[in-house]
Amino acid sequence: MKKLKGALLIGQSGGPTSVINASALGVFKEAFKHSEITGIYALRHGIKGILNEEFYDIRQEDMAELDRLFYTPSSAIGSVRYKLKDFSVDDTDYLRLLTIFKKHDIRYFFYNGGNDSMDTCLKISRYLKSVNYECQVIGIPKTIDNDLYGIDHSPGFGSAAKYVATTLREVALDAQVYDTKQVVIAEVMGRNAGWLTAAAQLANFGNSKVDLIYLPEVAFDLDAFFDDIKKILQTKNSVVVAVSEGIKDAKTGKFIPELYTELATDAFGHASLGGCAAVLANKVKEKLGVKVRPLELSLLQRSAAHLQSLVDVTEALEVGRQAVIAALNGVSDKFVGIIRTSNNPYTVEYPLLDLEIVANQERKIPLEWILPNGQGLTKEFNEYCLPLIQGDNPAQLIDGLPRFAKLRKVLVKK
Amino acid sequence: MKKLKGALLIGQSGGPTSVINASALGVFKEAFKHSEITGIYALRHGIKGILNEEFYDIRQEDMAELDRLFYTPSSAIGSVRYKLKDFSVDDTDYLRLLTIFKKHDIRYFFYNGGNDSMDTCLKISRYLKSVNYECQVIGIPKTIDNDLYGIDHSPGFGSAAKYVATTLREVALDAQVYDTKQVVIAEVMGRNAGWLTAAAQLANFGNSKVDLIYLPEVAFDLDAFFDDIKKILQTKNSVVVAVSEGIKDAKTGKFIPELYTELATDAFGHASLGGCAAVLANKVKEKLGVKVRPLELSLLQRSAAHLQSLVDVTEALEVGRQAVIAALNGVSDKFVGIIRTSNNPYTVEYPLLDLEIVANQERKIPLEWILPNGQGLTKEFNEYCLPLIQGDNPAQLIDGLPRFAKLRKVLVKK
Repeated sequence: MKKLKGALLIGQSGGPTSVINASALGVFKEAFKHSEITGIYALRHGIKGILNEEFYDIRQEDMAELDRLFYTPSSAIGSVRYKLKDFSVDDTDYLRLLTIFKKHDIRYFFYNGGNDSMDTCLKISRYLKSVNYECQVIGIPKTIDNDLYGIDHSPGFGSAAKYVATTLREVALDAQVYDTKQVVIAEVMGRNAGWLTAAAQLANFGNSKVDLIYLPEVAFDLDAFFDDIKKILQTKNSVVVAVSEGIKDAKTGKFIPELYTELATDAFGHASLGGCAAVLANKVKEKLGVKVRPLELSLLQRSAAHLQSLVDVTEALEVGRQAVIAALNGVSDKFVGIIRTSNNPYTVEYPLLDLEIVANQERKIPLEWILPNGQGLTKEFNEYCLPLIQGDNPAQLIDGLPRFAKLRKVLVKK
Repeated sequence: MKKLKGALLIGQSGGPTSVINASALGVFKEAFKHSEITGIYALRHGIKGILNEEFYDIRQEDMAELDRLFYTPSSAIGSVRYKLKDFSVDDTDYLRLLTIFKKHDIRYFFYNGGNDSMDTCLKISRYLKSVNYECQVIGIPKTIDNDLYGIDHSPGFGSAAKYVATTLREVALDAQVYDTKQVVIAEVMGRNAGWLTAAAQLANFGNSKVDLIYLPEVAFDLDAFFDDIKKILQTKNSVVVAVSEGIKDAKTGKFIPELYTELATDAFGHASLGGCAAVLANKVKEKLGVKVRPLELSLLQRSAAHLQSLVDVTEALEVGRQAVIAALNGVSDKFVGIIRTSNNPYTVEYPLLDLEIVANQERKIPLEWILPNGQGLTKEFNEYCLPLIQGDNPAQLIDGLPRFAKLRKVLVKK
């Protein structure tokens, strides 16, 4: 099979993870090896980088700095939340994209993101086919939410899960130092799927205990919640609760903060969450008259590169590498999946799956893994999750602090 | 000099740190070496452990578990916030204490805490002298706030500073991934002294920048704050702000959350803080119409043993050890200080200082180190702080997570 000759373009999209740059690094490192790839470009802020014709020229970067992407968190080339219209409805953006792709001879396009980004990837692929522009289009998965359909787990999840489990194991010790009643309510990201919140259960060991876990897969009953806490306070002083930001009130179907205020929405129509723990803390204080500390893990859980899982970051690199290999083999309209082939020892494969599978679908926790009354999850969840948080990936420390990558970010001439 | 023969008792008091248990370990390890010490007891919840006659017998612990205290966060034997009255006013607690000390033949008493705890230590020491009960009383410093008077820095501060600098270096990368305007307001602990908030400045490197830092040492002007942010938003998309929980409104002298709600107070009359970032975020959103994320570092910054500074945890162990050595040498009514004897290479000494120096006094950042308009601190602060965050102290990992100490906690018979 004849390999396409032309330039490679990669974009990062959606919320960052602590290992998303490892996938970009995987793409870069593999691309450097192949003479068919005549340019290696990275989009400034995802799709917007196409519309604005803003690409970084990765060949201008220092190799030692690129290597530091392996432990540098957050989308180093910039991310975006931008929804492409259907090209049958409005092809303005697509015409612009085609012009830019032709001008820079883009023949390999990779988009690294979650469900929405895979949808974007699919639309671009279909459009380019419809106009007979030869280009291999491959999606690279990432999301701390772990809600990508059709695969075992998503790059980014393992490290975020390790962060949640480690910090809550620590916080649970702090929560019990006084002999007075105290409730800590930790809020974890996850709009519709509770995978990351469920990782709170891994914190349990010795004196550390996350007592209650509430996931968006189950309607949230405020009165039952108060009762669950009250019951535990009868036998011990401190209660540690993990709630997903996406839990919805059973009576109204609304997000918890939405009960008291209107929420902003993003380009994809998703409500801006956060603040759930704060609202619940106030309610528990009112209702039970005990000290309550809300604890929103917020940006920390997705940027904590210092708690990367080695398994996760290694896989993140590999899905990037596999995307380039597949594209060079003539594959297009696919994304690189991760399938677990054995749990003990833990092994995975990277099959190429149809973008349709993953675009705009969400994978939730199996209901049979979820115990009633906030009691957490069955051991199946732990068996699923533990292999994903193994090993660490220490950054080079300078002056006691991680020395993250400093890219030159040279823009390609327009 | 004849060494007192009798039992040793140690208590932990006030807010936990990630290295407070290292000080207890230092006490235990030194105590094990000396036959004059006939019992090694740890108070359950500080002073309350005396009043309730609840001591853990440390000789019943497994040595391997005790050793794990070196990287186990939060007060492992329990802490307390309890204010002893002056014994000239009400000696009820002191009479109880004397009875308990006599019954268990306590001749070595160590109290590990901050300003308030050193005051407690001083009161106990004075009382025991007044009734001619022979007992060596020594204070062991700790506080993430770093506000202890008369010493260079406090155990606990270095690790918390490393946490603040590391996580804000990561968060600052996350804050700039989109090409839209965003403000992140991180709230750091520190009631009257801004040392820990100032550590946010160490996050600055490469693309990470904490743009504005507000400390309790300087009255906080809301209008100037809005202007400071607005000015930066004119030149870049993302602004990262670090604020101390203890900043006070310049006009009213009130804490920021206190402008909108009444605050609870603890046993020492200190207002319960937290929520400052959330209040400021709402105001900035209202005023400037940009996206704002509040980020309260809350319990995380004082329990994050996974980001311990090796310098800090080593010193924490050493102040515990030095306290025992001093007491065995007949020293009493003192606390173990830390004085820096050289900055490059960094070296310290552990002088024994009068408890009066430290009790109820607070050490603040020199005003000449603080730049105007939230612009951070002079290089003198960095030179002061950097040596304190050096090195790490990895915990033993089991299943990818830190294996913290599991004490047996056998209570001594009443």
